Amino acid sequence: MTIYAVIMAGGSGTRFWPLSRQRRPKQFLSIGTARPLIVETVERLSPTIPVERVHIVAGHGHVSAIEEHLPQLGLDALIIEPCARNTAPCIGLAAIHIAARDPDAVMAVLPADHHISQNVRYRELIQAASERAEQGDIVTLGIEPTRPETGYGYIEFDDQAVPEETSLGIAALSVARFVEKPDLETAHHYLSTGRFLWNSGMFFFTPRTILAAFARHLPDIFAGLERIRDTIGTSEYSATLQAEFSEMRSVSIDYGIMEPVSRPEDPTALLVIPADIGWNDVGHWAALEDYADQDEDGNIVNGSTVLIDAQQNIIHADSATVAVVGLDNVIVVQTGDAVLVCPKTRAQDVRAIVDDLKAKNRKELL
Amino acid sequence: MTIYAVIMAGGSGTRFWPLSRQRRPKQFLSIGTARPLIVETVERLSPTIPVERVHIVAGHGHVSAIEEHLPQLGLDALIIEPCARNTAPCIGLAAIHIAARDPDAVMAVLPADHHISQNVRYRELIQAASERAEQGDIVTLGIEPTRPETGYGYIEFDDQAVPEETSLGIAALSVARFVEKPDLETAHHYLSTGRFLWNSGMFFFTPRTILAAFARHLPDIFAGLERIRDTIGTSEYSATLQAEFSEMRSVSIDYGIMEPVSRPEDPTALLVIPADIGWNDVGHWAALEDYADQDEDGNIVNGSTVLIDAQQNIIHADSATVAVVGLDNVIVVQTGDAVLVCPKTRAQDVRAIVDDLKAKNRKELL
Repeated sequence: MTIYAVIMAGGSGTRFWPLSRQRRPKQFLSIGTARPLIVETVERLSPTIPVERVHIVAGHGHVSAIEEHLPQLGLDALIIEPCARNTAPCIGLAAIHIAARDPDAVMAVLPADHHISQNVRYRELIQAASERAEQGDIVTLGIEPTRPETGYGYIEFDDQAVPEETSLGIAALSVARFVEKPDLETAHHYLSTGRFLWNSGMFFFTPRTILAAFARHLPDIFAGLERIRDTIGTSEYSATLQAEFSEMRSVSIDYGIMEPVSRPEDPTALLVIPADIGWNDVGHWAALEDYADQDEDGNIVNGSTVLIDAQQNIIHADSATVAVVGLDNVIVVQTGDAVLVCPKTRAQDVRAIVDDLKAKNRKELL
Repeated sequence: MTIYAVIMAGGSGTRFWPLSRQRRPKQFLSIGTARPLIVETVERLSPTIPVERVHIVAGHGHVSAIEEHLPQLGLDALIIEPCARNTAPCIGLAAIHIAARDPDAVMAVLPADHHISQNVRYRELIQAASERAEQGDIVTLGIEPTRPETGYGYIEFDDQAVPEETSLGIAALSVARFVEKPDLETAHHYLSTGRFLWNSGMFFFTPRTILAAFARHLPDIFAGLERIRDTIGTSEYSATLQAEFSEMRSVSIDYGIMEPVSRPEDPTALLVIPADIGWNDVGHWAALEDYADQDEDGNIVNGSTVLIDAQQNIIHADSATVAVVGLDNVIVVQTGDAVLVCPKTRAQDVRAIVDDLKAKNRKELL
């Protein structure tokens, strides 16, 4: 079994402003980690998926950052999206490239900007998921929910169906449905049933399987993908990609593929493996609390700081010394041209600053 | 009547870190003001004391800052202290210089780093105080207390004595005693009696009067001052100043002169004029609340900021954009190499940061 990783690196991550910028989104930053998230994403796959079989899908604007951080990648590792069209066209584009190498290989589609602390277990789950994917199933990893989170999509599994066992003894459950981000009441209900897992955005399938699903459920996008596929390795590729990809609809893999595949009438089995891997989607600064090292006062500190009567804070000092006196549970992020100060409870609202800067056309800070 | 201003510019102002530094103390900063405090101090004296009659006492380290901010000063306006010896030697040194120009002139001794909002009234009080000083009295301005402040010295006046009327109709009261910074209980008592004023550190006297008081109460310092005086205008001045001044005791004018002069047996009258002049000693960042302009949300803002759900804050952005979300009543000060974040209620404790930096020998931040 040959597994290829397809790492989706198109995100923007505005909630990590001022550290994240349009040219340097979250996946290229070290956020409570020793190395940038995208580097850790690649390195934790080895040896199950060695770097020679890692592909990254990204826009033109991020090519130089990828080359800088991941010089070990092969020359053809990068798959360029000419524009952002959400995850379905992105994954379809990756699928035609992997298919050109090996249509029966397994693709592990992974976000570039998440944190995982249990890497050994994670690789076991990749192995187990890939085993089922090689058989023609679509497999996803679902995270056991620990709180009624309203920021994630959920996957409901069918607790009446018999789980598929893998050779590693890991059970893959039948997916009943994919659901979008719920309101708080619904999230409480999901948590109470024990039948819902968080959608991690990690998927496993062969190019053959996923392209057949595109043909069934997103035929217009599939037609465009076929026209691009026919030019791979020719001088017409760039122009065809540009023309066809930009014409595609923006649609997510969850809505465009997973939801219809989860219906009983679809011929492909959709499975979810519950994954206890110390997963965190690094959604905002306060997420660091869940995995980053803390000092004896519970502060998560990066860079030069002076802390006096200061507890449970998250401080990132890029190029200056940050001094905090008499404050708890705040976030302070310093970069050369900007400083953010907010309570941890408002970490989600950092994007409002970015919106404000956009409205004022302060491009130098975006 | 000729009035000379003697502006004492030797302070350090560590509570305005990170804006204030050893080489750029508070008096050289614009703190809720359009221009640096020392510039405003000089300019608010005109026309009562024109710039030609302004002297500044400072250490070697501040000469270039003074020349930069006050190019209009005369060449002989600067009186250099070779080392810091508190206010009594400083004022004595100024007195022998003014005496060399005119022993019967009035010296107005003024701190360089306070804020005064009622400048017209202030100049009237300078005129009235100088009138009494010309008669041989020592006069000080006392601020009507508005709270039981423990950070200031107090002046008790004698409410049985008949006030001295000046030609402007301003009453000068007899001083009963100078008292040091009280504890909170004592400060409450002072406030309740109605007989106590805050010590503003502003004094008016002739060189003849103050030097006679030095001769009576600080004879050792007076002897040193006489030896320096004898060399003014000669090539021996610098060496004599260096040798004699560094030998002097560190003693404050309040303790060394004002306290003994306030005793009944002293021949010189000590008077205080209650001064309602919008005075503020600019003791720490939170002091800006008392005089600086606020936006519609009560924020005092300097520089580039983005404020979302943020009220009653004090934000100083020197060279970067400071964004605050969801915090009230905090101080955020950004400079190129440091950021301070603390609640207004902890503004006094900013000096603890400076102490910490000193202990760590981080000279580049001091």
